[in-house]
Amino acid sequence: MISSLLKFLTPQKKAKTTLVSKEEALERRKKFEQFVNDLQNHFVQTLQKYETKAVFLRDEWQRQDGHGGGITCVLQDGNFFEKAGVNTSKMSFPFNQGIAQSMKERGKVFTDDEIKRYNIYANGISLVIHPINPFVPTVHANYRWMELYDRETNQTIDCWFGGGGDLTPHYLFEEDCKEFHQGFKNACDPYGQDLYKKLKKECDDYFFIKFRNERRGIGGIFYDDFLIEDSWDKTFEFAQKAGWATLNSYNTILERRKDMKYNEKNMEWKQIRRGRYVEFNLVYDRGTKFGLFTPDARIESILMSLPHVAKWEYMYKIEEGSEEEKMQKVILNPVDWI
Amino acid sequence: MISSLLKFLTPQKKAKTTLVSKEEALERRKKFEQFVNDLQNHFVQTLQKYETKAVFLRDEWQRQDGHGGGITCVLQDGNFFEKAGVNTSKMSFPFNQGIAQSMKERGKVFTDDEIKRYNIYANGISLVIHPINPFVPTVHANYRWMELYDRETNQTIDCWFGGGGDLTPHYLFEEDCKEFHQGFKNACDPYGQDLYKKLKKECDDYFFIKFRNERRGIGGIFYDDFLIEDSWDKTFEFAQKAGWATLNSYNTILERRKDMKYNEKNMEWKQIRRGRYVEFNLVYDRGTKFGLFTPDARIESILMSLPHVAKWEYMYKIEEGSEEEKMQKVILNPVDWI
Repeated sequence: MISSLLKFLTPQKKAKTTLVSKEEALERRKKFEQFVNDLQNHFVQTLQKYETKAVFLRDEWQRQDGHGGGITCVLQDGNFFEKAGVNTSKMSFPFNQGIAQSMKERGKVFTDDEIKRYNIYANGISLVIHPINPFVPTVHANYRWMELYDRETNQTIDCWFGGGGDLTPHYLFEEDCKEFHQGFKNACDPYGQDLYKKLKKECDDYFFIKFRNERRGIGGIFYDDFLIEDSWDKTFEFAQKAGWATLNSYNTILERRKDMKYNEKNMEWKQIRRGRYVEFNLVYDRGTKFGLFTPDARIESILMSLPHVAKWEYMYKIEEGSEEEKMQKVILNPVDWI
Repeated sequence: MISSLLKFLTPQKKAKTTLVSKEEALERRKKFEQFVNDLQNHFVQTLQKYETKAVFLRDEWQRQDGHGGGITCVLQDGNFFEKAGVNTSKMSFPFNQGIAQSMKERGKVFTDDEIKRYNIYANGISLVIHPINPFVPTVHANYRWMELYDRETNQTIDCWFGGGGDLTPHYLFEEDCKEFHQGFKNACDPYGQDLYKKLKKECDDYFFIKFRNERRGIGGIFYDDFLIEDSWDKTFEFAQKAGWATLNSYNTILERRKDMKYNEKNMEWKQIRRGRYVEFNLVYDRGTKFGLFTPDARIESILMSLPHVAKWEYMYKIEEGSEEEKMQKVILNPVDWI
């Protein structure tokens, strides 16, 4: 078990050719697209139940170059959610030196000729939910699949998955943290007994505001350049389990917290924490940066992850022994919830 | 005139030794420190006149390693200003490969032995003022001086100035833009007839949110690695003129706009524009990044530049023919105000 785990967690020294027929490659695209669209629809329906003022706006968009597009579902200025965005997108674009370089850092090497011949196909769902009530946490998740293929022959050269989910509560409820992490543990366990632990650590390491020595929230799981036992099917199965777990555990947490009363101080603290969310996303988040620096990118979809309102107070003071301090301690030192 | 301009605008190929006695080097530090402290005090006094609820808090701080410190003056949650910060700081720290590398990009080359032997002394003022009234613009300015010196002998190796000021109105008043730019033109003119034009362009180029193809505001002047005719005295004189011009023109603009009535729509637009301010500062601003990535940096002072409140609306629509659109047009296409 451990050796098979090590196998897929170790960077591959050379991209391998995954022999997949054109038909099977198309079938994979269909399956993943179906999954992200289903998850998007269910997320939107579930969230809409809590909201009686605003409705989700659905924007279908196409890339200017015609090679892809997506569906952006956004709700804002509601009476339950400040801002909620659930996006899917799929696109094909030429492989390039920039991406090849970042893959090289992960141990995959390509010749100039290969770089010229290949395309990347990317398909995924990305969501960020910022509720109004400070006792209801913000959630973020992303499930994506990338395929490198030969433009001429449509031959698949390589493929990998990325994604995960993480929770950003403003106040600490241990049972919520456990709920969220247990959902992911259940999704991970069939694929290796240490997988959850590994991906939980990756998440804590990733959502880290280094200059503040703070985590963005209480974590979850995070994975990139990921393929379980070289199997597309297994990794797809895992991504689905993780995706549905995100929806289920978040729904449970919404039910628990939705009617909690809050005061101005709670709102203030939430907005300060949202400022940190902005800091992470604009200073560190690779996905956001990749998006912002992509030519002709749809900025509105990329920055949908930012909260509706964020606040920066000079020298904000957390009272000793307060609920805010309880939260802050966890952000400074990640906890093993399970 | 043009040849002398070209001279100081062209990167030097090799750092030159500026022969300055230890006494003169100390004298320079005293003079610049006196200037930034005076400007800080006058800014604080001037701004305080407009504010009747909050007062400026004055924080004197020292670096943990003992090699420097500063004075942070911050006012927040007032009835005229949302947040106003006027900081001065001075510090000495060892020259390092990172800074040497960035200087190399500007044409200055150092040996490993030199890098080990040298220190940097930095002294400056940095201010950002975010008023409540959407018709009163945000202003930012920074005036600094850096010296590279030999730790053993105290011999000055090189020195340069950096800084400038820029205005971020939310609504366009041409007379304010002209006032602000004319102040800087007057400061520049004694040092070359094209100097203002050049530094105005540097400012437009620098305060640019590339992914939105927007400027942060209506600009001002910006300079870095700057030394007029190899003369510390002349450049110091220029920095003083620019610094006092910032205060004077901003005060004039405050007087003009302070009593203007505004509505909720104006406030909303201001907060959207403040979101763009956050985007620029966290994604592009070199000073902010340099600060955030400096070990043991004082994050509270660095992020003082962020507005008190910022907002992100998905697909915010600017009405055709509106005052917001008038502002937006200038942000998309910088104007020559003089």
